[in-house]
Amino acid sequence: MATIASIKANCRKVMCIGRNYADHVKELNNQKPKQPFFFLKPPSAILLPGAGPVLRPRGVTMHYEIELGLVMGKTVRDLDPEDTKGALDAIEGYLLAIDMTARNVQDEAKRKGLPWSIAKGFDTFMPVSNLIAKSRIPDPHNAHLWLSVNGQVKQNDSTELMLFRIPRQLSDISRVMTLEKGDIVLTGTPKGVGSVTAGDVMKAGLKIGGRDIEESRIEVP
Amino acid sequence: MATIASIKANCRKVMCIGRNYADHVKELNNQKPKQPFFFLKPPSAILLPGAGPVLRPRGVTMHYEIELGLVMGKTVRDLDPEDTKGALDAIEGYLLAIDMTARNVQDEAKRKGLPWSIAKGFDTFMPVSNLIAKSRIPDPHNAHLWLSVNGQVKQNDSTELMLFRIPRQLSDISRVMTLEKGDIVLTGTPKGVGSVTAGDVMKAGLKIGGRDIEESRIEVP
Ligand SMILES: [Mg+2]
Ligand SMILES: [Mg+2]
Ligand SMILES: [Mg+2]
Repeated sequence: MATIASIKANCRKVMCIGRNYADHVKELNNQKPKQPFFFLKPPSAILLPGAGPVLRPRGVTMHYEIELGLVMGKTVRDLDPEDTKGALDAIEGYLLAIDMTARNVQDEAKRKGLPWSIAKGFDTFMPVSNLIAKSRIPDPHNAHLWLSVNGQVKQNDSTELMLFRIPRQLSDISRVMTLEKGDIVLTGTPKGVGSVTAGDVMKAGLKIGGRDIEESRIEVP
Repeated sequence: MATIASIKANCRKVMCIGRNYADHVKELNNQKPKQPFFFLKPPSAILLPGAGPVLRPRGVTMHYEIELGLVMGKTVRDLDPEDTKGALDAIEGYLLAIDMTARNVQDEAKRKGLPWSIAKGFDTFMPVSNLIAKSRIPDPHNAHLWLSVNGQVKQNDSTELMLFRIPRQLSDISRVMTLEKGDIVLTGTPKGVGSVTAGDVMKAGLKIGGRDIEESRIEVP
């Protein structure tokens, strides 16, 4: 199996869905989307396990968003949204990721109708776990995500709460842009996002059937 | 020198500046920016010379934007905006690119405060020329860009009209995200953007001192 370092070295795009859990949509005072929307993070934002802290740019309010990530194993183009088998077959493995967001930069971009790329794209803004073998997550719509800050649990929800499921996500993305082997898809964050500052310690993980998956652990100082 | 096919194969991000020529800002009824802003295009959007037409997605108003592209030759982080030598030294070569834009999708994204990634990211939405050796463009702020549709010249301006010059662009980008060898930067489009539909033929090129640079030619059916 590929290592997470080789995943980072070979990744050519990271596509992320926005507003994919109803309670998270509410907490940011956003509208529940009628269809999914997506944005890109640059591969340069990936922070490998043990590679140091998330760096807070000056003047930035930095929010965490814990998400299940898909590592693509093959080329996907024009996937049918009903093709669940095709979608799952195209996934090579999983990872856990924190979609760090410069919330004040993003809020200003939204107000002005500007792109989100800067708000989402700073170096270190995508801490990841190790690669999780596909066999460890029998059903990606039945996995439990959690994230704590300084020991306090902040996010703690099941992926079964996704508004748009993985086949629909891969379908919508692949009708716009070809997904290539090594691309990463982040599937959205549940409620509980909030800010962190220098010195805060984020921990996160993924549980299947109530048990922590060791290689899903993230710990960033 | 690398070929354009290997540039596409190895490219990990394409960063593009918005609103970098005053007359283009006016024609889209936008405000002249006080500072540059940027967005990402996915490498999967790159359309190699001779690789076929730009594909218009259904329901999309598709605009061309001719731009000078920089191919990065080394890692750049936190570049000083005054460091012109550092900026130019970091460039490995140039290319000409058309930043194809789903204008109606982008307009809706702007209205709703949503990301631009879809509007800018469809497959084939970045036709490129062959690689242009660095020595062919002695001063990237003194090159002439042109684009025609069905033989009618639509864009025809010098890069000396850039609002933010290349060192400032590379500085601003690299203070957010590390630029890596093989990354591409698109430096903005002059006035004259407009729509094309299936069957239109776009041609484009770059002139130095009044003479066309052969390897800068783009022709897309
Ligand atoms: Mg997110
Ligand atoms: Mg964007
Ligand atoms: Mg452009």
